[in-house]
Amino acid sequence: MNNLFGDVPTQCPEELVQTILANCNVRIERIVSYGHASPDGFWYDHVQNEGVLLAQGAARLRFEDTVVAMKPGDFIDIPAHRKHRVEWTTPDEKTIWLAVFYE
Amino acid sequence: MNNLFGDVPTQCPEELVQTILANCNVRIERIVSYGHASPDGFWYDHVQNEGVLLAQGAARLRFEDTVVAMKPGDFIDIPAHRKHRVEWTTPDEKTIWLAVFYE
Repeated sequence: MNNLFGDVPTQCPEELVQTILANCNVRIERIVSYGHASPDGFWYDHVQNEGVLLAQGAARLRFEDTVVAMKPGDFIDIPAHRKHRVEWTTPDEKTIWLAVFYE
Repeated sequence: MNNLFGDVPTQCPEELVQTILANCNVRIERIVSYGHASPDGFWYDHVQNEGVLLAQGAARLRFEDTVVAMKPGDFIDIPAHRKHRVEWTTPDEKTIWLAVFYE
């Protein structure tokens, strides 16, 4: 995968997460959502900080205190242990994210 | 700046480089080029690795041994000290990059 929009499989039962690069300090992932949302009651609680770009599609991220709607180009920095979940991704097209996890 | 495509100034004399986030291990930048290229004879020689996404526009990166044409969605990982220069960016629109420098 050397293009963020390339080689996207047809509908997957789960979100598709692919590591673009990783070492001890940083991990860059492509995530493809297609109408997916986090399971009811599930919260991400990452030990690393996560800077995430929504490159295509549309989504809503829920935090404990707010909901953030995201459109293409939107970038959000989520500190480690800030709980969040994917509330919604559009069913109309694939939502493609570039996520950078860092210490 | 919370949208990669937002708040882009009109033509700047130099490439516009804006830090989105940075700490000791990682730095994420938005770079806006508009027909810019690296000065003749200039080579980037970063002490950090650089993973870079071309989000909009078009560019050619020159390495000592090859030239890589980049289109939207293309991602390239450039190891530290791999010399490179921006050979060309399109004059037709702004080229917007997301660069992740990491140890």
